[in-house]
Amino acid sequence: MTHPSVIRPADHAAYAPDKMGKTTIFESARLLVGLNAFEPGQEHSLHAHAGQDKVYHVLEGEGVFLLETQELSMVAGDLLVAPEGVPHGVRNTGESRLLVLAILAPSPVRT
Amino acid sequence: MTHPSVIRPADHAAYAPDKMGKTTIFESARLLVGLNAFEPGQEHSLHAHAGQDKVYHVLEGEGVFLLETQELSMVAGDLLVAPEGVPHGVRNTGESRLLVLAILAPSPVRT
Repeated sequence: MTHPSVIRPADHAAYAPDKMGKTTIFESARLLVGLNAFEPGQEHSLHAHAGQDKVYHVLEGEGVFLLETQELSMVAGDLLVAPEGVPHGVRNTGESRLLVLAILAPSPVRT
Repeated sequence: MTHPSVIRPADHAAYAPDKMGKTTIFESARLLVGLNAFEPGQEHSLHAHAGQDKVYHVLEGEGVFLLETQELSMVAGDLLVAPEGVPHGVRNTGESRLLVLAILAPSPVRT
């Protein structure tokens, strides 16, 4: 039986010149583990997920994270939870790349 | 409305002299975000969760992670997924403390 093995998240980062890059590391019905990769100046605008909690964990760089009406400065190592229904977003306000681990539970419904 | 704010995981680590220390950072029905804190030599023996996926993310230190029959060396920054039903465990084989972010989805049933 094949299982996931050790993952070095940064090896899976996919940056894109036009918008935030997204990568999926693991996905089941219960859980999605992904990466959001931001070039300087890129952002993911405020949005919400009904019935899904999201965990952001900053792996590299720094940025401003939006959580409802709050703007929170975060650096590598910091973690933020956006509970279901709470609007959240990210802006790379730094001068270097921003890499964020994004975990959603349960997994988004694919249509 | 009060929401979680920026979390610096290491600030919440709880080490114990007799066994692995556990801390809960966030919990809902969908998700549990916690910390497993290991002094040198401490371990969490092989166990499995029916119907729950677990993500391990090493924050500090190094150790051996067990995934079914595999023994995987992991260091800070490395990530491992134990899908539901797959036995997993942790041994701090290093000379310093091992701090691991442990995310379970859905949350364990509390009895």
